[in-house]
Order: sequence, then structure tokens, then C-alpha cells
Amino acid sequence: MMIEVLAFDGDDTLWHNERVFSLTHDWFRAMVAPYGGPSTGDELDERLYATEMGNLALFGYGVKAFTLSMIETAIEVSAGRIPAVEIQRIIDAGKEMLAHPVDLLEGVESTLDALAGRYRMMVITKGDLFDQESKLARSGLAERFWRVAIVAEKDPSTYRRVLDAHGIDPAGFVMVGNSVPSDILPVLEVGGRAVHVPHELTWAHEAGDAVDSPRVWNLEHLTDLPALLERL
Amino acid sequence: MMIEVLAFDGDDTLWHNERVFSLTHDWFRAMVAPYGGPSTGDELDERLYATEMGNLALFGYGVKAFTLSMIETAIEVSAGRIPAVEIQRIIDAGKEMLAHPVDLLEGVESTLDALAGRYRMMVITKGDLFDQESKLARSGLAERFWRVAIVAEKDPSTYRRVLDAHGIDPAGFVMVGNSVPSDILPVLEVGGRAVHVPHELTWAHEAGDAVDSPRVWNLEHLTDLPALLERL
Repeated sequence: MMIEVLAFDGDDTLWHNERVFSLTHDWFRAMVAPYGGPSTGDELDERLYATEMGNLALFGYGVKAFTLSMIETAIEVSAGRIPAVEIQRIIDAGKEMLAHPVDLLEGVESTLDALAGRYRMMVITKGDLFDQESKLARSGLAERFWRVAIVAEKDPSTYRRVLDAHGIDPAGFVMVGNSVPSDILPVLEVGGRAVHVPHELTWAHEAGDAVDSPRVWNLEHLTDLPALLERL
Repeated sequence: MMIEVLAFDGDDTLWHNERVFSLTHDWFRAMVAPYGGPSTGDELDERLYATEMGNLALFGYGVKAFTLSMIETAIEVSAGRIPAVEIQRIIDAGKEMLAHPVDLLEGVESTLDALAGRYRMMVITKGDLFDQESKLARSGLAERFWRVAIVAEKDPSTYRRVLDAHGIDPAGFVMVGNSVPSDILPVLEVGGRAVHVPHELTWAHEAGDAVDSPRVWNLEHLTDLPALLERL
């Protein structure tokens, strides 16, 4: 079937995101080190990731959840020795992440320009509602999209709900994103097609093996998308 | 014009919310007291509110934002003397809020039953995306609604966007909620009608004087809504 709606993930598909988390991870390792805890950065990352996963069902995704999990991890690995002034620095680091300029991936604007008018284009992104809206606004891309859906989780039932709410036939729907578990697998399950554009940095929770399916295409760069769509 | 779509606010319109914030405020006052700072609870509340307002543009609404603001306030009023173990208790208090059972306001279910089939009903609520979705699911009310919109801010541009996305004519749209600045004024501005049902507890940021307009009705209880709508 003809492609009618082309949906893009936001974080690490349209704009960089893990980069900022990665810088904050580095800062967090250095900050926590003097207060004891894991002897290696990798072990600290594992503790932080375990805290994040333990908090996921209550906190969901996004910078505020990450900031609260950093605070909990700092308290835990320091056995409560971390002083309040350092906890304030963690909150300030979270604020810096939220205020960080939105860096578009290379060629995003020209790619969207090349596709404009040929498909109804939307953004389907997950995370903090406030933060995602703010990033989309600051990206300068908002007016290029027909619709924007910010969701709490990217599972098949969410995609079904979004497609239904916007009157989209899954057979004419293509999702473009960097995350196999969030952008590819659930879209296949609801009957859509997907284009996987891996990002150089991927959070452990969003990692996954390349999918082998006649309804999935893999691209190295988003800029290859118009040529791919012409061939379909 | 005929009423076609009836939209309900969530927090303190369908289910209690400020109650849980209020209990946490009380707990927070008692917890912070031994570490110095304001001599009265009212003064501490003012400091916390000022922190929340200062963080609003970055954090938005919801429990995670409130939890981060409680931590900042505790650090600030204690001049950094608050120990990490108490900060962990603040995070735990935030988690308790998120896990708190959803208490419906009296008569919500029978009121929605009485309106079912006569209007397309939706929820338009703001706050943490993850938390609001979870509350709606736990409320047992989700299946009664045609659509759900969780938004970062309830201003005229948000209402315009939501109405447009769902193909709703403002002239046939009625919003029902407890907050004058969020549920009443912006809806009037986009050409809709509104029913104000005040809640016994209202956060300072959501307070406002009763609105005098031929397109606004004031009700004491949500259960009076079906009778009001019959008269319109």
C-alpha cells in the first residue's frame, strides 16, 4: 500500500539526546567518586541503570526521572555520605540537560524539506511531556509536522491508540527511528512498516539487534530516507 | 449550538489530587523543621511554592517536578544541613504520591453513566504524562472516554491544538473542571463553553475568581452536571 503517513521519533532521530545524557554520566562519575562506592565508572553506570529500571514503572522516561535516579544512586553508593550541596549540583545538572540547546542531526532539515508535501508527516516521541514539547519548539521543526504525539511508552497498544486517534491506516504508516524496541518492533506488530536509522549512541534500554523483516529497512543516515521511499 | 463534546479535567475534577499533595506538604513541614529554616509552616510553604514557580518553565507540572522542588527547598532552607537520608525520604514520599490509590470524587461514575451516549466525552488533563496515564488506567474510567489528551500546559494554544487534532468545533465544546485559569478562561478564549466545579482544595497556582460569562456555569458538585446540560 502507498505510504500516507511518515512518523519520526524525536530523540536521536531528529535531534541528539544521548550525547547530553552521556556527558552527564561522565560528570556524575567524577562527582560521586570522592564519596566512595563503586571503584569503576562502569559499575556506577550499572548501579544507576538498575535504579532507573527500578523506578521506570513509577517515574517513566525523561530527564526528571533520570535526575531523581541519579540522586538515589548517589545516596546509595555513598551510603548516605553525599552532602546536600552535591545533591543540589545533581539537580542543577538535570536543569542544564533540560535547558540544553537542541542539536539537530545532520541533514534533518533538508531531508524533511525533500519529503514535504509528499507524505503527512508526524512526530511520535516519548519522555517528559514538557521537555519534549519544549525540544520540538526549540528545534524549529514543529511547523513541518502535521501532528505530534508525545507518549509515555512506545508499545503496540500506544501505537494502536495513536493511529486510531489520528485516523491512520497502519498499512499506510511508516515509522522512522533509532530504537529497535521502541520504533521498529511495536510498529511491525500493529501492521505498519519501519525504517531503522541507528544512532552512534544508544541507551541500553533502547538497544536491540537489527530486525530482519520485509517491512523493515535499515539506513545509515536519515538523509538516505527520500531515496529509499522513492524505491518502495 | 448543540453540545457535541464534553471534556473533563482529571485532577480534582474526576479524582482527588490536592489531598495527596496536601498530606505530603504536612509531612514535609514536619520533616524539615529540625534542620532549621522558616519558623512557620506557612513560610515554608511559600518558599516551596517559590521554588516550584522558579522551576516551572523547565520542569512543568506533576509529582516528579514537585519532588525535585521539595529537595531543592529542603537544601535551601536548611542551608545545606539536610542529610542525604532525609533526601531519600523526600524521593520516597514522591514515589508514594505516584503509587497512591486513585480516589474518585463522589458520584463521578454515576454522573458519567448518566451522560454516556449523549455526548462524546473526553479527558483533558495536565501533568506528568506517565503519572496521568497511570491514574486514568487505575481510575477504572478510561473506557468511558472517547479520547484522552494529556497536555503540558492548559493555555488557549493548547486547547486550539487539541480541538483541531480531534476535529472538534469549539462552538460544540464544553470543558468541565475545577481550575479557573486552566479549565475555564482559556476555553472561553478559544470559543468554547465551560462548567466550573470548584474543589475544596486548590493549589495557589490554579486558584482564580469565579468567572461571570454567559458561556460559563458554576456547579457545586459534578453530580449536578446532567441536570445543567438538560437545561442548556
